[in-house]
Amino acid sequence: MIKHAITQSPVLDLIKERWSARSFSHKEVTKDAVHTILEAASWAPSANNEQPWEFQYALRGTPGFDTIWNCLMPGNQPWNKQAAGFIVTIARKTLSANGNPNANAEHDTGIATGFLVLQASSMGIYTHPMGGVDKVKLSAELNITEDEKLLCVISFGYLDVAEKLEEPFKGRELTARTRKPLVEFVKAV
Amino acid sequence: MIKHAITQSPVLDLIKERWSARSFSHKEVTKDAVHTILEAASWAPSANNEQPWEFQYALRGTPGFDTIWNCLMPGNQPWNKQAAGFIVTIARKTLSANGNPNANAEHDTGIATGFLVLQASSMGIYTHPMGGVDKVKLSAELNITEDEKLLCVISFGYLDVAEKLEEPFKGRELTARTRKPLVEFVKAV
Repeated sequence: MIKHAITQSPVLDLIKERWSARSFSHKEVTKDAVHTILEAASWAPSANNEQPWEFQYALRGTPGFDTIWNCLMPGNQPWNKQAAGFIVTIARKTLSANGNPNANAEHDTGIATGFLVLQASSMGIYTHPMGGVDKVKLSAELNITEDEKLLCVISFGYLDVAEKLEEPFKGRELTARTRKPLVEFVKAV
Repeated sequence: MIKHAITQSPVLDLIKERWSARSFSHKEVTKDAVHTILEAASWAPSANNEQPWEFQYALRGTPGFDTIWNCLMPGNQPWNKQAAGFIVTIARKTLSANGNPNANAEHDTGIATGFLVLQASSMGIYTHPMGGVDKVKLSAELNITEDEKLLCVISFGYLDVAEKLEEPFKGRELTARTRKPLVEFVKAV
């Protein structure tokens, strides 16, 4: 499988075999599966155990799915018609204890998102986090408050063959993943 | 083990069995193991595959270790004397393509940190991300530039028994982990 990461070190299969897929099958993802994925996310660490994350989700065939799909950037819409659902990730910007700004909110919600995508992978469910969303429009549709920040939309589903996609999505699905070599982002001090 | 998460859904053991430990053993973590953990982090998804993360690390017994330890908040210093090492996570604030601000930098570095802590767990290495750091001082010590932002310091090591810790750290290490129930952070739309 061309998408499986070729790594220098013995990285977990769970991590090597995950990618942001574009080819989703018709198979539905159950509400229970989504709840498992989101509960896994919630066991991420956060500063002072603040748990600043919130998630809104919609399964294909619901009005919520259409609402979210309509807010995707045009380049993300075609290959997401087959997604089994969407998860919207949201960070609460202030601390629950005193209402002061939480400087770690986006970072900690990111950690939870890391847990989320790996839990999904372990269940054979592929995810694709997207920043390419009309966040202003979607925030209004989902009643995101001033105290919250919409970070990304994650589409998910079981995998289908890449050949069912149209170009340019098929080509992207069939291209190997690449990362910078360690020396470019790691330094021993 | 009281720290193992009691979950409602069948969450991955890797996630259930991870916690931000405070009790580290004398056993050293090798440079190769750190490189594996950081390579795993780099396979996280990021907007446009920007990979905005950078990591600086130091193993116990090196001058870099003392430099980082000296920048921890006093409450984090005692139990970190036995850490096998520290990883400092850093987000690059601008996009490599055009120098514009990267709105996803902290979030995406958070996702990578999620991968990092789970890769470490799978190797029996416990991690503890800390925001309680003198970030101004440490940024100066590590030559963090204006274009970069120091997010957190992660201490790591193999586990030792909690009983070796002094209070209040022993009590914290022996307290069960808690998370909000799903209904408080998840909404179907």
